[in-house]
Amino acid sequence: MPKISERSVKMPASPIRKLAPFAADAKKRGIKVYHLNIGQPDLHTPEEGLEALKHVDRKVLEYSPSQGYPSYLEKLVGYYNRYDIKLDVDDIIVTCGGSEAVQMAFMVCLNPGDEVIIPEPAYANYMGFACETGAVVRTITTHIEDGFALPSVEEFEKVINERTRAIMICNPNNPTGTLYSREELMRLRDLVKKYDLFLFADEVYREFIYSDAPYTSAMHLEGIENNVIMIDSVSKRYSECGIRIGAFITRNKEVRAAAMKLAQARLSPPLIGQIVAEASLDAPQAYHKGVYDEYIARRNCLVEGLNKIPGVFCPMPMGAFYTVSKLPVKDIDDFCRWCLEEFNYEGETVMMAPASGFYATPGLGKDQVRMAYVLKIEDLKRALVILEKALEAYPGKI
Amino acid sequence: MPKISERSVKMPASPIRKLAPFAADAKKRGIKVYHLNIGQPDLHTPEEGLEALKHVDRKVLEYSPSQGYPSYLEKLVGYYNRYDIKLDVDDIIVTCGGSEAVQMAFMVCLNPGDEVIIPEPAYANYMGFACETGAVVRTITTHIEDGFALPSVEEFEKVINERTRAIMICNPNNPTGTLYSREELMRLRDLVKKYDLFLFADEVYREFIYSDAPYTSAMHLEGIENNVIMIDSVSKRYSECGIRIGAFITRNKEVRAAAMKLAQARLSPPLIGQIVAEASLDAPQAYHKGVYDEYIARRNCLVEGLNKIPGVFCPMPMGAFYTVSKLPVKDIDDFCRWCLEEFNYEGETVMMAPASGFYATPGLGKDQVRMAYVLKIEDLKRALVILEKALEAYPGKI
Repeated sequence: MPKISERSVKMPASPIRKLAPFAADAKKRGIKVYHLNIGQPDLHTPEEGLEALKHVDRKVLEYSPSQGYPSYLEKLVGYYNRYDIKLDVDDIIVTCGGSEAVQMAFMVCLNPGDEVIIPEPAYANYMGFACETGAVVRTITTHIEDGFALPSVEEFEKVINERTRAIMICNPNNPTGTLYSREELMRLRDLVKKYDLFLFADEVYREFIYSDAPYTSAMHLEGIENNVIMIDSVSKRYSECGIRIGAFITRNKEVRAAAMKLAQARLSPPLIGQIVAEASLDAPQAYHKGVYDEYIARRNCLVEGLNKIPGVFCPMPMGAFYTVSKLPVKDIDDFCRWCLEEFNYEGETVMMAPASGFYATPGLGKDQVRMAYVLKIEDLKRALVILEKALEAYPGKI
Repeated sequence: MPKISERSVKMPASPIRKLAPFAADAKKRGIKVYHLNIGQPDLHTPEEGLEALKHVDRKVLEYSPSQGYPSYLEKLVGYYNRYDIKLDVDDIIVTCGGSEAVQMAFMVCLNPGDEVIIPEPAYANYMGFACETGAVVRTITTHIEDGFALPSVEEFEKVINERTRAIMICNPNNPTGTLYSREELMRLRDLVKKYDLFLFADEVYREFIYSDAPYTSAMHLEGIENNVIMIDSVSKRYSECGIRIGAFITRNKEVRAAAMKLAQARLSPPLIGQIVAEASLDAPQAYHKGVYDEYIARRNCLVEGLNKIPGVFCPMPMGAFYTVSKLPVKDIDDFCRWCLEEFNYEGETVMMAPASGFYATPGLGKDQVRMAYVLKIEDLKRALVILEKALEAYPGKI
């Protein structure tokens, strides 16, 4: 039997998936599981998007252009303009979800062995994409005590070396919910400029910012226009994770041309997804306000509830729909498994993502957990009760 | 400005795209262009698939499972069974088009520097995917004189060395339309077994076989069950190129597990495309017969017409909807460009894909052209007239 590749062996399994068999077993035993573990929004897709599906009047579902539909690209330019991000149509390539945009960024900008610095805890699949492309991820640890703020310039400079080619941020952040301030981004700009690095900015949670401070995108940063690649996606914005529509955005013409070669090799992004995404851009302000208000209410409910549980600490996240909190347990992986395998409260339990899986540094995050507040308030409240009961009953408590 | 990666520099541009600007210019000048250059079927998508779109009654367009929807996977098992390909649900991973399945095969099975042998002329994007993953493509030339038959065992053995890890075939073949016989596939099986290689079999044109001989899939070959990865797609089968639904299929559990890690990293294949593809599996026999009869008629029209033009030779393809023919010109790239830029016959011209772009060996295919018969018969007839007139007028004729 022929051997699989070394990168396949090294490729990390998604940390969120490890517990799936235990959740499936719990359900088989008739236990209701509250899913705090994944970022699958439950809020409705805009009607405009759903209606567009019902009115696809094509007779042939043909390839769309490799870059994406011109009409969608033009509407996207208008969308970004609302955030004061000035783009040309040619700065945008429509991708198969944000995932493909990350893959493209790594493929275009990093040679095998080149290093990309990512603050940890980090979205776990970045590690997978790095492994696929031979890039090396160097993480710098952020800390729950200061709300996972961006590390200092000194911390970055400690790991910068001749193989460093890029810094990657997710802002607002998955998994922490942290929103980087304008000051933090300006520091990053200076660093990127000083060392002439690429800056990969995953900004798919732009709509979910719970601060009155003006929003700062990496695309706003002056003087590094040729260094920035923005990764975007409509998945979370419109509860459209399944349509697989993202974007690879850069003003760097050379990077853009290289990414177009990748885009052409895979022929085209999903056609129907683009039709839905384009129509969703017409969702009224009321849709966004409804979504926004709901997430703020949920965030407040979850974070306040968590901080009331003895021994639990959760900083207030200012963006996205995740929190990372500290639980009074020795081994979070064991606790999360135990919740599914050995525990239930009145026939119900909770599923959470151990934050250990979001750290590359071994041993970190062993008492931290990521939760997504994509459940209704009443379900979140119930999940909080169950979590408190679980912590009371768990034998591995500190 | 930071430098792009070496693989981005090396990445070949799609040969089919090079002429696009000339075609666009011709259209601007009011010239009608007959597109023989791309494999975008014009035949209708099955009504079952189009209707499914209009009845998506979800309120949230959520992630589908990374492997694909269980209901679609189960129906696929039944579909393959009709071709006597016996599979379990777990042998199949739904991908974003056949393209992603090829990427996965290269990623999972080949280390950077590992070699994959591909008969040329070959589907040009294989070269792009190899470049992305660091794999090295070794081509063996097939010849128009014998209808691009599979090379002999000796030809394969000439290029097999310690870095050889896989053989890749496309059967029926894009670009040549060649269908490999059972005997050719049995030779391949022995070779794969002898050297313990992977066999990547791109079989997306399974529905388009114009021979009475029993169909042989790589999945039928006994004794190499753990070596074969089949690449599939509904793009051509149902004229659904835009929905981006393909499949990565293998009975090798280790390969399957490694591919699932890639599938999980990119989260999920397109949701709506799966709904359309699943419904399309219910297309009645009449749909398939209609499509089949139409392509046979077109093939006969095109190939007979080509062979009537002085100096043109076109073998009769037994599969897919492409032909590669030999034209009496010195430089096919120049001729195809000239047709768009300098020629028209009564305000019309033809766009073809120079076959030079499908050979990795420099200098080959300089008098060969690929045409796709995805136009109506009357348009094919008109395109043949225009081509004959173009050859009469072209100054670079042999």
